[in-house]
Amino acid sequence: MTQWVQFQHQGKSGLGQVQGNQIAVYSGDLFSNPQATEEKINLADVTIDIPCSPSKMVAMVDNFHALVTKLGHAVPAEPLYFLKGNNSFLAANQVIRTPKSYTGKVVYEGELGIVIGKHCHEADETEAASAIFGFTCINDVTAIEILNRDPGYAQWTRSKSFNTFGAFGPYIATDIDPSQLTIKTILNEQERQNYPVADMIFPPAKLVSLISRDIPLEPGDIIACGTSIGVGSMKPGSTVSIIIEGVGRLDNRFE
Amino acid sequence: MTQWVQFQHQGKSGLGQVQGNQIAVYSGDLFSNPQATEEKINLADVTIDIPCSPSKMVAMVDNFHALVTKLGHAVPAEPLYFLKGNNSFLAANQVIRTPKSYTGKVVYEGELGIVIGKHCHEADETEAASAIFGFTCINDVTAIEILNRDPGYAQWTRSKSFNTFGAFGPYIATDIDPSQLTIKTILNEQERQNYPVADMIFPPAKLVSLISRDIPLEPGDIIACGTSIGVGSMKPGSTVSIIIEGVGRLDNRFE
Repeated sequence: MTQWVQFQHQGKSGLGQVQGNQIAVYSGDLFSNPQATEEKINLADVTIDIPCSPSKMVAMVDNFHALVTKLGHAVPAEPLYFLKGNNSFLAANQVIRTPKSYTGKVVYEGELGIVIGKHCHEADETEAASAIFGFTCINDVTAIEILNRDPGYAQWTRSKSFNTFGAFGPYIATDIDPSQLTIKTILNEQERQNYPVADMIFPPAKLVSLISRDIPLEPGDIIACGTSIGVGSMKPGSTVSIIIEGVGRLDNRFE
Repeated sequence: MTQWVQFQHQGKSGLGQVQGNQIAVYSGDLFSNPQATEEKINLADVTIDIPCSPSKMVAMVDNFHALVTKLGHAVPAEPLYFLKGNNSFLAANQVIRTPKSYTGKVVYEGELGIVIGKHCHEADETEAASAIFGFTCINDVTAIEILNRDPGYAQWTRSKSFNTFGAFGPYIATDIDPSQLTIKTILNEQERQNYPVADMIFPPAKLVSLISRDIPLEPGDIIACGTSIGVGSMKPGSTVSIIIEGVGRLDNRFE
């Protein structure tokens, strides 16, 4: 298992592999065979960036049996999704902020993120599996009182695309079996979510295959796999962490 | 009124203003004070590109009184929108194609497109008006049988984001009063849509202001203003044209 990180150090952008409390620096592009350098940097000395720059984040709805059951929804026959605005992307350790135009509750949603490694369009499941580069942690932050306030139109993209509402990272973990992972959300040191990837309705390779029948996926694109039970609101001043063992721990403060 | 065009000519990308059947070539970036050159090219000698490269296309739902009334929907209290995938963008005269994974009806939706000229976030109506660079023609193509086939989740982004489903252009018209415009859709020489911008629920400057409270808009971003009555399906081999007098005529074949 390898954890890739992108970072700022002494005014420059960098890429590397996490090795204990150090970063082994690489040159080149994460998705185009980056090359190891001799350089090592202390992880404590960098500012972590988002681990890749997606051209799009495809975000799933109703993709875990436990939540679908709790909500009384039907198990969907095919993946249900929307696009989360790229302006929402936020790195680990940065601050999630309440939008100026909104005074309602803001909720966390801990999610597994699939990171695409190569162009993938109309792919079968085997091709889709090989197009998956790795996995990351996502906090799919939501202005929840916007979602259903219009009586006829659910505002998924809008409620989830404010600046800072798409936190992901800190790393992309490769060479890892996602089926054994669990996603935990910790709010102010209290566990609020703890659910297994094994409960996914459309697991990663199947999901990527089906989405790729609709829209071509590109290196760095992210599929936010949807959340499960335990979603809740955050008070200003809260610290929220999405933890997927082996993948990473995404910490953000909410203001 | 000026009509800007981007094009391919002798293997190179170009930018210019349409003057009769010629293009007066400009250098630089469309949104950063491009400079006139001495060069003129015959419009007939170029391949037209999309007139700008949006970082996002924000697409409106239920934004014309006539269609909202016909559908029996409530007039929305605020703009309702989704994001159309950037992969869907298609230039004038290029072919709209039925997706391999879909066998249902494909419909045209003729729309006015607002093109943003400068960064615009949390803007009031006056600031929003000054952030509008110009207007273009859009065909918001839709795999209509996907839209409502899940009983609990309307699939707006998915049904409208297949490759080639976001046709726009051929030009961006600047220095034009949108309130006097009408949008016409011609399918195989028959007029199918003919509706006034004046019927918009959220007219351009108000729309840009309200959307900018949610998400920052960037130069080249497009707001697809939504359609009105007269939407219908296209048979393979059809030619569909979205005509907005003074703005342009967007022709595409459907296969």
